[in-house]
Amino acid sequence: MDGIKDKVAIIGMGCTKFGERWDADGYDLLVEAGLEAIKDAGIEAKDIQAGWLGSHSSFTTGQPLAQALKLEYIPITRVENACATGTDAFRNACYAVAAGIYDIVIVAGVEKLKDSGISGLSTPRPPGSDVAPLIPPPSQFALAGTRYFHEYDIPYEDGKETLAKIAVKNHYNGTLSPKAHFQKEVSIEQVLKAPMIAWPLGLYDCCGVSDGAAAAIITRADIAKNFRDDYILVKGLGLAVGGNQGLLQDDYDFVHFPENVKAADVAYSEADIGNPRKEIDLAVVHDCFTITELIIYEDLGFSPRGQASKDVAEGTFTLEGELPVNTDGGLKCFGHPIGASGIRMIYEVYKQLQGKADLRQVKNARLGLTHNLGGYPGSFSASVAVFGARD
Amino acid sequence: MDGIKDKVAIIGMGCTKFGERWDADGYDLLVEAGLEAIKDAGIEAKDIQAGWLGSHSSFTTGQPLAQALKLEYIPITRVENACATGTDAFRNACYAVAAGIYDIVIVAGVEKLKDSGISGLSTPRPPGSDVAPLIPPPSQFALAGTRYFHEYDIPYEDGKETLAKIAVKNHYNGTLSPKAHFQKEVSIEQVLKAPMIAWPLGLYDCCGVSDGAAAAIITRADIAKNFRDDYILVKGLGLAVGGNQGLLQDDYDFVHFPENVKAADVAYSEADIGNPRKEIDLAVVHDCFTITELIIYEDLGFSPRGQASKDVAEGTFTLEGELPVNTDGGLKCFGHPIGASGIRMIYEVYKQLQGKADLRQVKNARLGLTHNLGGYPGSFSASVAVFGARD
Repeated sequence: MDGIKDKVAIIGMGCTKFGERWDADGYDLLVEAGLEAIKDAGIEAKDIQAGWLGSHSSFTTGQPLAQALKLEYIPITRVENACATGTDAFRNACYAVAAGIYDIVIVAGVEKLKDSGISGLSTPRPPGSDVAPLIPPPSQFALAGTRYFHEYDIPYEDGKETLAKIAVKNHYNGTLSPKAHFQKEVSIEQVLKAPMIAWPLGLYDCCGVSDGAAAAIITRADIAKNFRDDYILVKGLGLAVGGNQGLLQDDYDFVHFPENVKAADVAYSEADIGNPRKEIDLAVVHDCFTITELIIYEDLGFSPRGQASKDVAEGTFTLEGELPVNTDGGLKCFGHPIGASGIRMIYEVYKQLQGKADLRQVKNARLGLTHNLGGYPGSFSASVAVFGARD
Repeated sequence: MDGIKDKVAIIGMGCTKFGERWDADGYDLLVEAGLEAIKDAGIEAKDIQAGWLGSHSSFTTGQPLAQALKLEYIPITRVENACATGTDAFRNACYAVAAGIYDIVIVAGVEKLKDSGISGLSTPRPPGSDVAPLIPPPSQFALAGTRYFHEYDIPYEDGKETLAKIAVKNHYNGTLSPKAHFQKEVSIEQVLKAPMIAWPLGLYDCCGVSDGAAAAIITRADIAKNFRDDYILVKGLGLAVGGNQGLLQDDYDFVHFPENVKAADVAYSEADIGNPRKEIDLAVVHDCFTITELIIYEDLGFSPRGQASKDVAEGTFTLEGELPVNTDGGLKCFGHPIGASGIRMIYEVYKQLQGKADLRQVKNARLGLTHNLGGYPGSFSASVAVFGARD
């Protein structure tokens, strides 16, 4: 088996303003992100040979992307894989390009959650279907928080402060992202005093619910230079899916998520990364909750097991740190329109590797990572992707 | 751009009994079809490196396939593309194999519709989502019926009889398919006297609502001989998605579906097919309604425009005819568990090309086609796939 390394390039990307987009429906958001990506790639819509649409609860087929961008009778696949939907749509598009089937492909992710009231997650499901666990996301991830504090003998106040520092970092980065949903700094004290959602997770430990869309235009790496000089290369793509809810597993530890580890193993292997902490210049990861980001640091090999709190205290993951994480504000502040999130993460890495991230630019960014996580502990869909600037 | 021809091979398939499967939930159906495919390929579940799951309304992520077959932390993508879900899942899996990313992959499609009451199609959707047209499927396709009769100046009674012959053919073929939902012959008179559903479509002009699952194991063509001698090669894969409902288009003619034509063009081009009527030995197509099958004959180039009724009268598409269509009973009788249907079609072609179709075996079957159609006139997802026996 070959990996995906250096077979596929991103030549254009677009991303809408995330947030409460009362001015736009899902189609409008696809138009906004899609046209920005098309323009950025220097192509026209009619040049697009195939599409992939990632959507969790807004759209069910490939048709809305055809309608939004007036794409006439091209193939469009719709992918859904819980909150990892966007990256998995991107992954499937990459394989079709790498196989030589298409030269110019669009991948778009979108979600319109704010006016669904129930954020799309509670759409009633017919009998015989899969169902979300009765315990909602904050409580599921809260179990990881209390267990993490217990496992590594971290006093509650210290653990809360570590998590608060992650929220403060992401809120700060959000102020540097004009398209982010929340662009407001918060203090450690504000985070610690915020209402409790699911012990030990308070309001600022939880990401928001947003509307938004993002899109990418990809092509074969060997023809990418025909479109632009500063294209970005796909270096590795890992996806891992778990088969059983952690709550139903006697030995599930809740302090690491094996899907993250497996997805990273695959992506690092494809990208020839031996020491992610040293080799990766920035990462945009799935901080649905602050505890998730803390565990991700360890699952992806950025911090040794049980040591991520120390790295947080040392500022390792801030914009000025050794390995900046969630440079755009993350799910916490950029927002989390489910199907769009994975592609929004790639958008940030793309801009960073092109040196176009303005106030939040990471110096000498050459290798970037995205991590996108869907589902619940024990039955996650975890995706890790690595991207590189052109040599 | 290269095509998919001869890059991917099917080395194992499985299909459940379709029908009212009160004995099984969606996971059970995945186990049943998946284990049959795994056994047929002569592999073990642990040999599977990646999965694709097609489901319309039963499952939302890749996780249920991991859970059903105890696949541990491999990548599993879930694809949904209306009633063409199964074939599109298969298509994406083929591209990943053709790209050299995986050697052994499972594609499964499943739907549990009978105990959803509302057949899954009416699941409430949040605001901002795509919605099914207010006019339900039988009425949408009925417009094609009345328009077809008008366009080609076919008296109502003659048109009804042509459609009835298609139903009679598929019901007969269903009696030769042990796994089909309906295994009962019907007469022309029974079909003509059946209750009207949506003029001119009566009860027997409409396919059923079924539970079921089907699965395929695929690999790279160049290593397929390591698994079995009678593997089947993928020769062409076309998908085309329409962007606007026909009802909203002034000039939509309702007597041909451009998505079918475009998808067939791509598949025929990849498979080097110049004269489908003569070159293809059998086809399994999306007969959601008898009028759909009639139009498909013309859209796929089996009959000249407006001439399909004549071919039906001459028995062209019966088991003993020049180009047998829906040898297994089609959606009409094998059943239509949405996400499974595309893969069930491939299952039939696979068995036919291996010479293992028992009582319904087509003589000297070397090249087979599947056609899978989702959505509504004007905004279809149409998929055409061509398969060949090993030379």
